[in-house]
Amino acid sequence: EIFNQAQAVFKQADLANKHIVITAGPTQEAIDPVRYLSNHSSGKMGFSLAAAAAERGAQVTLIAGPVNLPTPAGVQRLDIRSAEQLLKTSLDCISSCDIFIATAAVADYRPAEAAEQKIKKDGSGSELSLTLIENPDILATVAKHSDRPKTVIGFAAETQQAEQYAQQKLKRKNLDAVVANDVSRQDIGFGADNNEIIWVTQSGSEPFGPATKHDVSHFILDHINTLIH
Amino acid sequence: EIFNQAQAVFKQADLANKHIVITAGPTQEAIDPVRYLSNHSSGKMGFSLAAAAAERGAQVTLIAGPVNLPTPAGVQRLDIRSAEQLLKTSLDCISSCDIFIATAAVADYRPAEAAEQKIKKDGSGSELSLTLIENPDILATVAKHSDRPKTVIGFAAETQQAEQYAQQKLKRKNLDAVVANDVSRQDIGFGADNNEIIWVTQSGSEPFGPATKHDVSHFILDHINTLIH
Repeated sequence: EIFNQAQAVFKQADLANKHIVITAGPTQEAIDPVRYLSNHSSGKMGFSLAAAAAERGAQVTLIAGPVNLPTPAGVQRLDIRSAEQLLKTSLDCISSCDIFIATAAVADYRPAEAAEQKIKKDGSGSELSLTLIENPDILATVAKHSDRPKTVIGFAAETQQAEQYAQQKLKRKNLDAVVANDVSRQDIGFGADNNEIIWVTQSGSEPFGPATKHDVSHFILDHINTLIH
Repeated sequence: EIFNQAQAVFKQADLANKHIVITAGPTQEAIDPVRYLSNHSSGKMGFSLAAAAAERGAQVTLIAGPVNLPTPAGVQRLDIRSAEQLLKTSLDCISSCDIFIATAAVADYRPAEAAEQKIKKDGSGSELSLTLIENPDILATVAKHSDRPKTVIGFAAETQQAEQYAQQKLKRKNLDAVVANDVSRQDIGFGADNNEIIWVTQSGSEPFGPATKHDVSHFILDHINTLIH
């Protein structure tokens, strides 16, 4: 009992002196002053990880897209809207960052131009073509940067073949691990309180869950601890 | 004093026996299972109107897009996501509806096709063209329907020339009144708790505010009461 308690206390501080930067939530890409492109990320996984990392003694910076979630205790929160803002804020943080965890669902594309005034519907019933350009790849930029944090972890939210895409992402973006999950499942996907993931590194894969996002967070932080020690 | 109290009680019941249908919030138009087009409507104006109408004795149906707001007391809430779902739900309600108030910020356009699987970025850096088609005009469809509610009110959220656009909208869509507001102003626009509006009918315009959305709601319901009596 005493041993278990001691272990629990020890575990609570096992990320002390680490600065962990976590990105969370969706990005919004402006079409005009009222319209935008976005995605269904609730931000819950990233917020849960931030809370868990703070519980374990880390200094946590949470870079959050537009979500409706309270800031976890002891966490520094920086709010962003677009992928470009997320990149800038991430790069501002990396020189002091030990572990970078990218849970944000960054919009891959943004409108080539954001209109300054609201675009009026012409009522003709004709089609409209919206030209999209690729957003910067924030995770790859961080992982290939000269100031690369020691540990860089990505997430892969997929609707099919999640593990296979995660393996490709790991190599292509120079990551230490990728957390894969299947967002097509309503019980564990976007907005859900539970998650079922696969921890993917070069040395193999390990499934976890279904479990609460809190338990998934501690599973991920346990594995990050193994990576860095 | 007794007269004022009596007036207050009278006012609280001045919409008794009226069925008011209010649409609120944005719509989300799917690009694929994770991405969508939407807009910055918070739904606060529609939810405030629903609460105020229920306070005044009306039977209120609130058709709500994806927003993060509690359902006002005594209000029947029907949740929708896309413009097509909003149209269907609105038409399901109109035969019993006396007053239809369209505050929802309906997406004018939706992707011509929603992909069944998440669209993968090809990493080539090339542009992507998203073909959009016009959504049905829910307000005009209701206002020109053979089962048209006796009173149909629209909202015009504009970033410039709000009153002029409201006048055009009034005639073009066969409305009884249009509530115009300028969403480019941060203090009164999307997400704000205050609003400043112009009540626009064929017989003229009347500005109101800045005021809380609660006071704006009662101003609008006062004017609807004048219209219907």
